[in-house]
Amino acid sequence: MERIYIKDLKEHSGKEVSISGWVDIRRDQGKLIFFDFRDITGKVQGVILPNAKDAHTVGSTLRPEWVVQVKGKVNPRPERNIQKDKMNGDIELEILEIKVLNEATTPPFDLKEDGKEINEEVRLKHRYQDLRRPRLQKNILNRHKVLLHVRNAFSKNGFAEIETPLLSATTPEGSRDFIVPSRLEKGNFYSLPQSPQQYKQLLMASGFEKYFQFARCMRDEDTRGDRQPEFTQLDMEMSFVEQKDVMAMNEKVILDLIKTLYPEKEIQQTPIPVMTHKEAMAKYGVDKPDIRKNKDNPNELAFLWVVDFPFFEKDEETKGWTFSHNPFSGPKPEFMSDLMNQKNIEGILTTQYDLVLNGSEIGGGSIRNHNPEALKTVFKIMGYDDERIERNFGHMLHALGSGTPPHGGMAWGFDRLMMILENEPNIREVIAFAKTGEGRDPMMGAPGKVQDKQLKELGIKIVEGK
Amino acid sequence: MERIYIKDLKEHSGKEVSISGWVDIRRDQGKLIFFDFRDITGKVQGVILPNAKDAHTVGSTLRPEWVVQVKGKVNPRPERNIQKDKMNGDIELEILEIKVLNEATTPPFDLKEDGKEINEEVRLKHRYQDLRRPRLQKNILNRHKVLLHVRNAFSKNGFAEIETPLLSATTPEGSRDFIVPSRLEKGNFYSLPQSPQQYKQLLMASGFEKYFQFARCMRDEDTRGDRQPEFTQLDMEMSFVEQKDVMAMNEKVILDLIKTLYPEKEIQQTPIPVMTHKEAMAKYGVDKPDIRKNKDNPNELAFLWVVDFPFFEKDEETKGWTFSHNPFSGPKPEFMSDLMNQKNIEGILTTQYDLVLNGSEIGGGSIRNHNPEALKTVFKIMGYDDERIERNFGHMLHALGSGTPPHGGMAWGFDRLMMILENEPNIREVIAFAKTGEGRDPMMGAPGKVQDKQLKELGIKIVEGK
Repeated sequence: MERIYIKDLKEHSGKEVSISGWVDIRRDQGKLIFFDFRDITGKVQGVILPNAKDAHTVGSTLRPEWVVQVKGKVNPRPERNIQKDKMNGDIELEILEIKVLNEATTPPFDLKEDGKEINEEVRLKHRYQDLRRPRLQKNILNRHKVLLHVRNAFSKNGFAEIETPLLSATTPEGSRDFIVPSRLEKGNFYSLPQSPQQYKQLLMASGFEKYFQFARCMRDEDTRGDRQPEFTQLDMEMSFVEQKDVMAMNEKVILDLIKTLYPEKEIQQTPIPVMTHKEAMAKYGVDKPDIRKNKDNPNELAFLWVVDFPFFEKDEETKGWTFSHNPFSGPKPEFMSDLMNQKNIEGILTTQYDLVLNGSEIGGGSIRNHNPEALKTVFKIMGYDDERIERNFGHMLHALGSGTPPHGGMAWGFDRLMMILENEPNIREVIAFAKTGEGRDPMMGAPGKVQDKQLKELGIKIVEGK
Repeated sequence: MERIYIKDLKEHSGKEVSISGWVDIRRDQGKLIFFDFRDITGKVQGVILPNAKDAHTVGSTLRPEWVVQVKGKVNPRPERNIQKDKMNGDIELEILEIKVLNEATTPPFDLKEDGKEINEEVRLKHRYQDLRRPRLQKNILNRHKVLLHVRNAFSKNGFAEIETPLLSATTPEGSRDFIVPSRLEKGNFYSLPQSPQQYKQLLMASGFEKYFQFARCMRDEDTRGDRQPEFTQLDMEMSFVEQKDVMAMNEKVILDLIKTLYPEKEIQQTPIPVMTHKEAMAKYGVDKPDIRKNKDNPNELAFLWVVDFPFFEKDEETKGWTFSHNPFSGPKPEFMSDLMNQKNIEGILTTQYDLVLNGSEIGGGSIRNHNPEALKTVFKIMGYDDERIERNFGHMLHALGSGTPPHGGMAWGFDRLMMILENEPNIREVIAFAKTGEGRDPMMGAPGKVQDKQLKELGIKIVEGK
């Protein structure tokens, strides 16, 4: 007998069907046993009548979370028992036969509740059960819908998704890299990417013109509230464009995504307003102001572009200049001659644009420096000598000099965007297998010990003590 | 003036337009200078007439691979110059104005040729130029189309794409893991995933029922011809199914993909024929036979399912039993009692199915062991004691015991599939930023040295010498 999904049961009213799923709730009233069953599509109430002897025998052993296949008849509910706003509130399954497909231990926590008050370590250790919560099921399935929508949107606009390497080289100017010892070249290490920044620019050098990727990124940062050591970034880059073109493309995709998949959301203002960094700091004292007019409305979304950031800032440690956002960014065109002449350094503005949503930075990007001499000058202003520039960035300078078109792009912090869209307080609620704030996965036991043999093969040793 | 893509030029015949792109070829005939220009959409011939003085001055400096913006008039070609089968073979751009957007060094190799005869290290070092070859552009753009098609196909069938972690725990039974030292827990290591096998089964325990993912996988294997340390796998898993259901779902997606995106391909036989492992070995002497009838036809695709593999095989080293494919697979139902009683071990057949294409294994999967006692028995047959089973697989056994439905799935070796579809001799031709056979990335210089400071922070040390 073909399995019917629970959401489709009403189409089979009066007929015998087979469903598969979990025991959600059991209410044993002696002669009658009531169940709620659930599958990925929804829930339905079932009842074992006293005359269904075999079903009664099996049914009295069932516990919540057991996995069952149930044959039964779809009956309309009597008028007084109809629950209007509930899926299958007007039908009931008269259970004729139950087959136990798998038993289940009692969950370590209540799966019906919200779950946010439960100790995080415990939730993540039993994540396979924690993920059965309706709220998390919704978050993860909506995340899929958003991923697919964005992919199709960029593809329709001529962008190609291109995968870039995970085993890569160190990024000397970024945050701290995770590194991976090489066995074939003992003493050498790969680095895991903090972002595909260099690869996407190299793809522009290759002539692909319009690239995007949902990229997996990793940063070995100190634990800080709502950070994860790995995260997902919607990464895009395009050639022969100016700042307004990249901003317009991303604005189009993100607004259309919300209108399509979150029609209940109220976007405060479109087109998205643009504010300079100077104005944001003067008016709000922060570079990612929350401009919502009604912060009590959970459906209010206030987007804001922030532009015209200073290119350079003073490095507290070295007292020299460092970049404020991204060394690969170009200056605004009217500041190119200042850059090349290394003058008015504090006044040079970058083409950087940040996208702010309800006071969170959810994305950022820039038009890049496609002139190798100009990029080299950025590093000179930062105090690098020629040898260091060539060693760390030689491949990028050669690529820019090989026939690279003007280009620019953007990256969205995808976990944070999903968190805001789902009204969640932290990104762990929108990541299937999240880690603790300390970067641990208590379910898999990662990070963990490795065998001495492995370390020996890699030519590394753990330094004992402090 | 709005940029027109080169493929759309014929719609602007007689008009002035602006294009952007690369100098592909230059033929200077003194008074007339001819160019082929290219962008991501195609090529067009342009000519500078003697009266266009400024354009002539700029044009005489242009070299191949320079990036330009060109204003010109789209003229029909005289009848005798029309090239019928070529894009824009019936038009020519009369160049009025040229703006140089970026200069270009001379490429280290000919970009017009196939490129396969060039030293691999050189090609990969200058990959941003190598990728400009029409063949590689086609491969990478087609790869995008296939990725998108497969994603939409699984999504339409109710599957959700769910991202699983990259920083994970070691897989004691698989190939060699890449490991990542933890800074926050010195002396402990993450492992990079060889496949999301455990996570996708845990998602079935979570009740998601239909999962897929284009998963990035990494294995630290010895260099062997056509291997890459990182690769892409189309990974899927579904609940409440039998072997025939998973095979049918994958067969539907892959055949539809080829009919839609590769209509020129000739699929030898559908539905895909099924052969037992025993029959394959007897008839062909291999477990992935190439059953093509006409191996000279580059468009011939001969799919074959191979089934009924022995579950266990003798481990050459330990002389004990080991699994032939995947320890998480279930036996065929008629062998479950043999498994539970640990008898007739050499005769137990697994639910494993391999998908073979033109003699290459492009995918494989199985129905999993969803009964924790049965999975435990597999490890007992392999000689593991209770403590080792709990330490390595405790989380999986607990998950299976928490209410996990029957489930099964499959993974496709995506790089290999793309290689065959594109008629390429190795997977490096379908991976944008491939590594050498020795796992090196000569462009980024990976793997490479890291700073002593980094190693100190991680609490590890390089062991010198041998």
